[in-house]
Amino acid sequence: MTPSDPQTESSQTNPLRDRSRVRRVPERGTHERDVIDRILDEGLVAHVGIVQDGQPFVIPMVYARDGDDLILHGSPASRLMKILASGAPCSVTVTRLDGLVLARSTFHHSMNYRSVVVLGRARVVEDEAQKLAALERLVEQIVPGRSADARGPNAKELKGTLVLRLALSESTAKVRSGPPVDEDDDRNLPCWGGVIPIEETFGAAIADDLSAGDPTPGYVTGYARP
Amino acid sequence: MTPSDPQTESSQTNPLRDRSRVRRVPERGTHERDVIDRILDEGLVAHVGIVQDGQPFVIPMVYARDGDDLILHGSPASRLMKILASGAPCSVTVTRLDGLVLARSTFHHSMNYRSVVVLGRARVVEDEAQKLAALERLVEQIVPGRSADARGPNAKELKGTLVLRLALSESTAKVRSGPPVDEDDDRNLPCWGGVIPIEETFGAAIADDLSAGDPTPGYVTGYARP
Repeated sequence: MTPSDPQTESSQTNPLRDRSRVRRVPERGTHERDVIDRILDEGLVAHVGIVQDGQPFVIPMVYARDGDDLILHGSPASRLMKILASGAPCSVTVTRLDGLVLARSTFHHSMNYRSVVVLGRARVVEDEAQKLAALERLVEQIVPGRSADARGPNAKELKGTLVLRLALSESTAKVRSGPPVDEDDDRNLPCWGGVIPIEETFGAAIADDLSAGDPTPGYVTGYARP
Repeated sequence: MTPSDPQTESSQTNPLRDRSRVRRVPERGTHERDVIDRILDEGLVAHVGIVQDGQPFVIPMVYARDGDDLILHGSPASRLMKILASGAPCSVTVTRLDGLVLARSTFHHSMNYRSVVVLGRARVVEDEAQKLAALERLVEQIVPGRSADARGPNAKELKGTLVLRLALSESTAKVRSGPPVDEDDDRNLPCWGGVIPIEETFGAAIADDLSAGDPTPGYVTGYARP
């Protein structure tokens, strides 16, 4: 993984500006929505960048994809949410690490990964029914089946939650996969080359004191990402 | 995980400005360097935020901690590296996800996580010996033992790599751990509550064609994060 900027080609779904081109190793970049959507649907955390007084801040947030939007939420009192809600430019990045790539030269060491960078300006979801739907989508993207069991937000909680949408119209995926790529001169070095796969796995669920001894729901015992 | 801003208390190692206070759920924040260092030493990817023409960009990068600095590297031709090398303000965030926290209300659903936000301005490492040492540190943080086997950078590769250091002087960790915290009124709901642990695991190494049949180095077969 090296510094990467979002690819030249534009598509109907993703009209791109110059700032969204992938300049570094452009063959790794794509604006194909199915590639983008798969990465976004698998991820659990986004890194959200905003600017305040010229200083960037990058903060981890949960998110969901809902069609052509990302959904973000948080406290109306948070600085980050206030800046996002103002419609200021933001950058939302989701990264999945797939492997450590060990080449015969340290220079060609790399990582296998899939990442999506979304640029844009968030918009506030004001309508109560739409807020509820977005929050349910958020729960369902992270733990499918959970919203049927857990109590949904009451009026006070709903008021205390700011819900934002960010269009995927300016989004780019970048993917590196496969074995190391070595210089020809290095291929005879007595040095092992290959990939150490990285996986995100989920351990046995830990019930809290109130649920000790209760049956664990199937959506918890069988938890996996798409 | 909800929007979080870097805590009120300051320490000798981390003289903090107002912008680095943890405002949201401040009991989750800390400036203790041992907490910060452990998170940074475990992580494999940082999300680096910079600003160009008012637009933030958040890009995944490999990194290493070397004492009181982070080390970053990349191509001198990359936009991200050019902006970082200019000494422009940046934000570097490392996040480790530890669990999905399932409360009895969707409002109190959360994630267990550990994150570090570093604010500052990078400086370019110009000295060749220091560049080489920083690049070796980068390899060794990611795959300890590897630099003894792989060929180190030659003059051309070294020239084609920009190496940056970013001081940890303005850095903040934020940590959430443990079971869900429910409203008293929700404790009798017939709903399972607890945590689904998240782990980063490493699969069996995949040798490339050149190394097929060769013995796999111990630092690969026994690969684990600290």
